[in-house]
This record gives sequence, C-alpha cells and structure tokens, in this order.
Amino acid sequence: MFDLDERLGADTVEVSDLPLCKLLLMKDANYPWLILVPQRSNISEVFELSLEDQIQLMKESSYVAQRLKDYTHAAKINVATLGNIVKQLHIHVVARFEEDLAWPGPVWGKGPAKAYSESELEKCLNDLKSLFAEKWEGDKHDG
Amino acid sequence: MFDLDERLGADTVEVSDLPLCKLLLMKDANYPWLILVPQRSNISEVFELSLEDQIQLMKESSYVAQRLKDYTHAAKINVATLGNIVKQLHIHVVARFEEDLAWPGPVWGKGPAKAYSESELEKCLNDLKSLFAEKWEGDKHDG
Repeated sequence: MFDLDERLGADTVEVSDLPLCKLLLMKDANYPWLILVPQRSNISEVFELSLEDQIQLMKESSYVAQRLKDYTHAAKINVATLGNIVKQLHIHVVARFEEDLAWPGPVWGKGPAKAYSESELEKCLNDLKSLFAEKWEGDKHDG
Repeated sequence: MFDLDERLGADTVEVSDLPLCKLLLMKDANYPWLILVPQRSNISEVFELSLEDQIQLMKESSYVAQRLKDYTHAAKINVATLGNIVKQLHIHVVARFEEDLAWPGPVWGKGPAKAYSESELEKCLNDLKSLFAEKWEGDKHDG
C-alpha cells in the first residue's frame, strides 16, 4: 500500500500518474519544478527498488525531463534525489535558467518557496497536464 | 572520442573505470563524494544518452550508491545531475551524514572544498579502489 508522504503532499499538487511514479508539481513559482515519486512503500534509495522499477524510473525520469526541457526551453534540467529531510524516495526534475533565482547553484535550501497565485497555478497545472496527458506508451519515449 | 571535461579533471581523481562511466573522487574531504561520467561525447542531459546507456547508467549509479552507503554507513545517499556550470554530463553520488557540514541542505555551492592531505587522499583512494575493484559483472549487482 503506497501513501504519499505528508510533507510531499503539502508542498505539491498532482499532475499525472505514470506507470511507476506519481508526477507532482512543486508549489514554488520560482522554478518549473516537478517531482517523481515511485509508488512503492518503504523505499528511500533508488537502489532499494527492483531492477525492473529502476529501469522504469529511468524511463519516466527521462521522459519527464525531456518534455519539460522542450516545453520550457530551459538551459539545463537538474535531476536529483536527495531525501535528507523527506525519506520517501522522490526525484526532483527542475528546469533551470541562467536568470533564475539560484543559478548556477542548486535550488534546494535557497530561501522560501514563492507561492503561485490561484490563476497562475491553474494555468500551470493545465499546461502540464496537457504536456503529460498522452497515454504512457513505454518504449515509444525511449528513442 | 571521449575527453573528460577539464574542470572535472582538475577537481577529481580517478577511482575506476566502469563499463560506461569513469568513476571519480571529488577532492573535497568534507564528504565522501563520487562522480560518474558516462564516456560519451557531447552529452549534457541523461535523456540524450541511448536507452541502453541510460539503463547502464542506472545500474552503475545504483551499484556505486549502494556500495558507498554500505561502506560509509551514511544516513542518505544524494544522487544528482546538475550541470549548470560543467556541461559534460556527470552524476554526483554523495554520502551524507547528519553531522556533515551542509546537512540537511545540498552539498553544492556550500563554500570551498576542504583539501585532503596527501596521506588522507592516498588512503581514501586505496579504500575506494578496493571497494570498486571487482570486475563489473553487470546483472550480478542488480539484485
């Protein structure tokens, strides 16, 4: 039985369900910031997943990173699993720009999140839901 | 033809060659900090690798993370590909402890590296070379 960590739930809104991961949007308008959470219980490190799940995570993370980069025209995508505070395994996928608040440093621990306005959040979520709307077709995304 | 980025070369010492990646030790005694560099040219994002290389990268990254965690008894392994400064794709694998300098924040951008003394570096390299010495046997590490 998978339950999303409470803090992750509080800091994000749900975008989509991929075959392995929940795809979440971080409520921080400073960056286009997505989070993947493998829907498996009691896992803190990637290597604790089965090999099959590790490979699926790689596919989903690349799929999300590539789409996010194409969509945002970001300079770089940062992909990271830290988990020093929230132990439930989660993977950050953040679109970075040379003019963003933390560039070229990391986004974590860089002051408080900037709230989205209600209308911004609605637009952002709609855009992301469209971006990740198509049915997952696995290896189609692997080229 | 693969050439290691000059800055990566200057900031690290080589530990081992895995089938896909060079395994490097970051010259920062604040943290047990390894770096994987896929030996492919002109790649900045994981999704630019072939699917086969992406899967191999996942296997090597999990292998290195698990061994490093077992060896150091770290509280958490942080795995990240940022690349905002050095464009050549490289993956940080850092053993984190509740008493380390940056805990629970990220290690990047946290002040200057702490130099290893010559004898510390020699010992550390010897230990790591033993840790990652056995011939890569692929799926053996995937359990």
